[in-house]
Amino acid sequence: MSSFCRAVSDGVTQFVALDWGTSSLRAYLLSASGAILDVRGNDWGIMGLPGSGDDAASRSARFAQAFWQIAGDWLAQPNTSRHVVACGMVGSAQGWREAAYIPLPATTDGLAGSMVSVDAGNGVQVHIAPGLIEHGELPNVMRGEETQIAGVLSHLEHAGLGTGGRWLIGLPGTHSKWVQVEDGVIVHFDTFMTGEVFALLSRHSVLGRSMAEQGLDASDPDARQAFDRGIRNAASLHGDRGLLSTIFSSRTLGLTHALSGAEQIDYLSGLLIGHEIRGLLAGLAPEWRTARVAVVGRAHLCQRYRQAMLVNDLDAISVYEDATVRGLWALISAQEQHAG
Amino acid sequence: MSSFCRAVSDGVTQFVALDWGTSSLRAYLLSASGAILDVRGNDWGIMGLPGSGDDAASRSARFAQAFWQIAGDWLAQPNTSRHVVACGMVGSAQGWREAAYIPLPATTDGLAGSMVSVDAGNGVQVHIAPGLIEHGELPNVMRGEETQIAGVLSHLEHAGLGTGGRWLIGLPGTHSKWVQVEDGVIVHFDTFMTGEVFALLSRHSVLGRSMAEQGLDASDPDARQAFDRGIRNAASLHGDRGLLSTIFSSRTLGLTHALSGAEQIDYLSGLLIGHEIRGLLAGLAPEWRTARVAVVGRAHLCQRYRQAMLVNDLDAISVYEDATVRGLWALISAQEQHAG
Repeated sequence: MSSFCRAVSDGVTQFVALDWGTSSLRAYLLSASGAILDVRGNDWGIMGLPGSGDDAASRSARFAQAFWQIAGDWLAQPNTSRHVVACGMVGSAQGWREAAYIPLPATTDGLAGSMVSVDAGNGVQVHIAPGLIEHGELPNVMRGEETQIAGVLSHLEHAGLGTGGRWLIGLPGTHSKWVQVEDGVIVHFDTFMTGEVFALLSRHSVLGRSMAEQGLDASDPDARQAFDRGIRNAASLHGDRGLLSTIFSSRTLGLTHALSGAEQIDYLSGLLIGHEIRGLLAGLAPEWRTARVAVVGRAHLCQRYRQAMLVNDLDAISVYEDATVRGLWALISAQEQHAG
Repeated sequence: MSSFCRAVSDGVTQFVALDWGTSSLRAYLLSASGAILDVRGNDWGIMGLPGSGDDAASRSARFAQAFWQIAGDWLAQPNTSRHVVACGMVGSAQGWREAAYIPLPATTDGLAGSMVSVDAGNGVQVHIAPGLIEHGELPNVMRGEETQIAGVLSHLEHAGLGTGGRWLIGLPGTHSKWVQVEDGVIVHFDTFMTGEVFALLSRHSVLGRSMAEQGLDASDPDARQAFDRGIRNAASLHGDRGLLSTIFSSRTLGLTHALSGAEQIDYLSGLLIGHEIRGLLAGLAPEWRTARVAVVGRAHLCQRYRQAMLVNDLDAISVYEDATVRGLWALISAQEQHAG
C-alpha cells in the first residue's frame, strides 16, 4: 500500500492540488470526490517566487515558502492529506524538483506512476507530474498539458462519451497542443506556436503598425466576418504559399481599405488559427481524419477554433471545464487505485 | 521632348540618383553611361530626417534640407542634370511626395512614365518612382523593389541572359519578394515576411531563450549542417504541418541536445527559408516551374537561398550587383528614351 493510499485510509477527506506554472500559482482544495472546496491564485509562478536568492537551496526554500503560504492553513486541518499533487513548470529543470519528460505512449496511470516527490517539510510530500516527450526528427514536449489531457479523458468518461476509439484533443493557446488519444492512450501530439506568433506579429511586427490598439467586441458581426475571412484565406489556394506569405495581406487589406485597423486583428487571428487547423489536417494519417474531436479551453477561444474547423469540414465538441484541476484529481485517483 | 531629355541635350554628363528608404538615404552620382562616380549614405531615412516639425510644410522642408545636404555639391557642378531620380519610401504617403502604387502588369518603361515629380528648389526636380500593387483577394504591394527589378532586368540583358521568356526573381530580405517576369513584363509577385519573422522569433519568442547570442561563423560546417537540417525539415512530410508547428522543434532539438544554442539560429533560419521556398513552389502555376530563377542580394543570403532551392530541386543564378542603383539608372534611361 502506497503512502498515498495510507493517507486516504487514515480518515483523509480532502486533498491539496497545485497548478504551478511559469507566471502563476493556483491552489485547490478538493473533496474526496474531486469537488473544488476552495481555490486560490497569485503570481508566484516559478519565475515570480516570493523571497530572494537563485542558488539551489534558496530556490528550494522559496518554493516551500510559497507552498506553505498558499496552502498552509488547509494542511493544518487534520483531515487534509499530507500528499499533495502538482503539475506544470514546477516540475521543469527550473522548478522545485525536475520531473523528467516521459516518452509516449502514455496513460493517466503511467503519469501517476511517474510522479516525482519533494519533501515540503512537516510531513508533507508534494508529488509532481512529469511532462511528456515524443522523440523523432522533430521532437515534441509538453508540461502541464499532460494533466489537462488526463482531465479531459476523465471528463469524457464522466460525460458518457467514453475514451474508446480515437480522440483528437485540442488545447488552443500560446502554444496549442493537439493530442491523439487511442483507447485512452496518448499516442502522438503536435505543437503549434499560434498564440505566441499572433502576439509577436500584432505587437512587434510591421503588421501591428496599421492595427488598432483594440480589436472589435467579439459579438460584433464585423469581427466575426474579418476572422472568417482570415480562416478562409488560410484554407484557400492562397494559403498554399504558407503563413510567411499570407500574413502580409493583413497589412495590404488595410492599405486598400478592405479592413479597418480593428478588423485586422480579427483577420490575423483567423489567418493564424486557419493555418494551424490546415497544418493539423495536413499532418493527420487517414484513420485519424474520422476521429472524434474535442477543443478544450475558454469559451471564446473554443468558439473560434470550432469556427475554423467548420470551414475545414471538421466538427468538434467544446470542453469548457477547467481540465487542469480535473486532471490533478485524476492523478490523485490513479495513484490511489494503483496503490489499492 | 521632355525636360529630362532637354537636360541631357544641354551638355549634361552626370546624374544624381537616390535610394531613400525608411531608415537610410543613399545618394549616387552616375555617369552618362550609368557608372557610379560617387556614393554617399547616412541614416536620414524618411523616419530619421534632419530638422524637426511633423506638419506637411516642415516635413517637406526637411526632405529638401536632407536632399541638398547630401547632393548639393554634385548639383552645383554645371554638367549635373537638374533631374534627379529617387525610389523607396520617399514616395510613400509618409514620404516627400506620394507616388501611388501602379497596378500590374508593369514594365520599366511604365514605371519611368509614372514617376511623380517634386520641385526641390534651385531649378531641380526630383522624380520619384511609384510602387507596384497587385490587386486580388490577398493584395500585394512593393515599394523600392520595383526599381531593383528594373535593375535586375537591365543586368540580365547586359549579361547576355536576356529577359525573354519567364524569369522568377527573388529579392530575399526582411520582406522577401518573388517576382514573375514574362518577356520583360512584371505579371505577378508574392511577399514572404521571412526576415522579419526570423528576427521576431529569435529575439522575442520562447525559441530565443535557448539560443546563443551569436550564431556560428557562416563557414563553420556545423552552421551549414544545422541550416540544411532546417531546410530539409521544412521540405519534409513534417513540414506539411506548417511553420507554426515546425518552429517549435528549434526548442525541442535544443532540449534533447541535438542542437547547440548557436546551431539553433542556423536551424531556425533554414526552417523559415525552407518554408518560404516550399510556399513559393506550392503557389506556382505549372508553366512557372520551368522558369529561369535569379536570386538578388548579398552573397551570403543568396547562397542560403540557393541551398534551400537545391533541396527543393530548383536551381538559380545569383545576382550580387546592387540592383537598386542599376534600376535607378534604368529609370533615367527609360525616361530619356521615352522622351527621345
